[in-house]
Amino acid sequence: MYELIKRDGLARRGRLHTVHGTIETPVFMNVGTAAAIKGAVSTEDLQQIGTQVELSNTYHLHVRPGDEVVKKMGGLHRFMVWDKPILTDSGGFQVFSLAGLRRIKEEGVYFHSHIDGRKIFMGPEESMQIQSNLASTIAMAFDECPSSVADRDYIERSVDRTTRWLARCKAEMARLNELPETINKNQLLFGINQGGVYEDIRVRHAREIAAMDLDGYAVGGLAVGESHEEMYRILDAVVPELPEDKPVYLMGVGTPANILEAVDRGVDFFDCVYPSRNGRHGHVYTKQGKLNLFNAKYELDGRPIEEGCRCPACRTYSRAYIRHLLKAKEMLGMRLCVLHNLYFYNHLMEEIREAIEAGNYKAYKEKTLEGLQGK
Amino acid sequence: MYELIKRDGLARRGRLHTVHGTIETPVFMNVGTAAAIKGAVSTEDLQQIGTQVELSNTYHLHVRPGDEVVKKMGGLHRFMVWDKPILTDSGGFQVFSLAGLRRIKEEGVYFHSHIDGRKIFMGPEESMQIQSNLASTIAMAFDECPSSVADRDYIERSVDRTTRWLARCKAEMARLNELPETINKNQLLFGINQGGVYEDIRVRHAREIAAMDLDGYAVGGLAVGESHEEMYRILDAVVPELPEDKPVYLMGVGTPANILEAVDRGVDFFDCVYPSRNGRHGHVYTKQGKLNLFNAKYELDGRPIEEGCRCPACRTYSRAYIRHLLKAKEMLGMRLCVLHNLYFYNHLMEEIREAIEAGNYKAYKEKTLEGLQGK
Ligand SMILES: [Zn+2]
Ligand SMILES: [Zn+2]
Repeated sequence: MYELIKRDGLARRGRLHTVHGTIETPVFMNVGTAAAIKGAVSTEDLQQIGTQVELSNTYHLHVRPGDEVVKKMGGLHRFMVWDKPILTDSGGFQVFSLAGLRRIKEEGVYFHSHIDGRKIFMGPEESMQIQSNLASTIAMAFDECPSSVADRDYIERSVDRTTRWLARCKAEMARLNELPETINKNQLLFGINQGGVYEDIRVRHAREIAAMDLDGYAVGGLAVGESHEEMYRILDAVVPELPEDKPVYLMGVGTPANILEAVDRGVDFFDCVYPSRNGRHGHVYTKQGKLNLFNAKYELDGRPIEEGCRCPACRTYSRAYIRHLLKAKEMLGMRLCVLHNLYFYNHLMEEIREAIEAGNYKAYKEKTLEGLQGK
Repeated sequence: MYELIKRDGLARRGRLHTVHGTIETPVFMNVGTAAAIKGAVSTEDLQQIGTQVELSNTYHLHVRPGDEVVKKMGGLHRFMVWDKPILTDSGGFQVFSLAGLRRIKEEGVYFHSHIDGRKIFMGPEESMQIQSNLASTIAMAFDECPSSVADRDYIERSVDRTTRWLARCKAEMARLNELPETINKNQLLFGINQGGVYEDIRVRHAREIAAMDLDGYAVGGLAVGESHEEMYRILDAVVPELPEDKPVYLMGVGTPANILEAVDRGVDFFDCVYPSRNGRHGHVYTKQGKLNLFNAKYELDGRPIEEGCRCPACRTYSRAYIRHLLKAKEMLGMRLCVLHNLYFYNHLMEEIREAIEAGNYKAYKEKTLEGLQGK
């Protein structure tokens, strides 16, 4: 159940109450693809860096270790030892981006595993069953993510199918939540808005799914190659069409600047692989912009990555030491950078929530954007 | 200053007092080659798993980041943020095993860096200077590690040169410890016994270096291909020749069984890459023998790696989860296995110390060896 606490322009300060606890929004979800955060980061570490929601990928867990294994182990929460909320994606995005040869039919998608090549079928019911086995807090509807270069005609047909799939997801989730053997009988379901960069298709689709009374709504199919301005334009059009009493999730986005802009357009949930991916390459975030710790100028720099940062890396280690670790290809270097970056994102969200509560979000956003650009 | 607290047979329970605190012996030193423990383990983690001494490699740090850099950063303790004892090796072993083309002369060794191929010269004075720059607690003398298949004649000449090098090391260390710019003016120096598998050369060399009044003595050049029985035979011959009031260090050894046997022959210090190397391959130690966590039988195993283990992996995560991480090539899997293995070694040493104190070391050793063999 979503509770709107405060509005500041379109920015929203809210709370999503779940069986695994309350999520303070706006929130950044930390990506743990295969039930693990890349960069040797554990769920114990997530506790230390202020993580509220862990996000895992249904497709990856379905192929390894298998959602039946996770179910036998008591669900994802027990498997990875995390008692706070978990969101699982539908598997759709990975099927469309990772899988080899695939065929899309009304019933779902036939494709080959990217690991062992074996044939898999996934449709709305299969995605719901897998996510029910994983027992996440929030399940995502199974949708098609059409190619960003798909034509208007294809997008329209695809969006219509995604709507029909959403109805099937909702029915199947309701059925699964009733079964005695289901681990999380209160699993929530978020629908996903699609429509490429066509505003009118996006808006029509948003209205259709808004009428279906889901637990939350995501805007999908963005941050796949279009410009930031296009993304903001779509958000400007779509978010006001979504129910005010439900959380809004912008999937796979993005940079700190993207998040600041999207919050200003009413978005509540975010996830992105940038902080861990960049961390593994020695690129670390600060309020004054990104640093590349491989740079020779940090060789003798005894300062932490960011002065004042309370993350496990900055509390103890210097730029010079972390740079050395990265150059020596020591896994510890990646781990420390990932911990800092995830902390940075979580801490940014904390500041965003405070700014909305204080009613000065616009000023906070402008000041922070300036800093991030190194001004 | 070494303090002998208790003897039980030849096994010794002692303390080495250093400027960086007291080391309770017998002790296992955790290997952090390039000022980092492989497997994404930090010095903060080392605190959690009962580590007393961190060991770093002079050769690796000399080529990267450079001992001058470490000195400018305030020495290895400040660089890697570790305030307990650090032992650095002499660089000799790596020069003889890693470096490309090399020439051994009376003054030292000319060789090429394994990283960028540049020419380096290292002799006793250079090794002492580098280790003084690193400012470790204990420096190791620069010695030659002859090939394990070298003939008797070569070994004799090599050992004589190693003795002459040891005298130069001692003089240079005394000089460096007097310099105002030296970070650790109380740096200790351990001499190294060599002689291959020739007992008589080993014993002669042990007597020569015993007379030189060093802060401790190491037995080097073992665990390089000879049988365990040969190693124990050499220890039986050499350890009684070393001064009773100085600690004895068996370099690069070894398995839990090796350590149990060597303690029984009077050895106080150990180091070995096995726990971290095995951990990175999913091989974990238990009192009932090693487990290979890649094995399918752990797929649904909800137990910790070892029941009752208080390490950061076992306190929280299951074999099934760690196996999944390893199969998915998630760095976290390696990290958890390495943490467990290092904890296992440190904890084994704790039990060894208690058994010696209780005067039942032989019985403890036999019982533990039986368990390790899965009996
Ligand atoms: Zn930080
Ligand atoms: Zn353990």
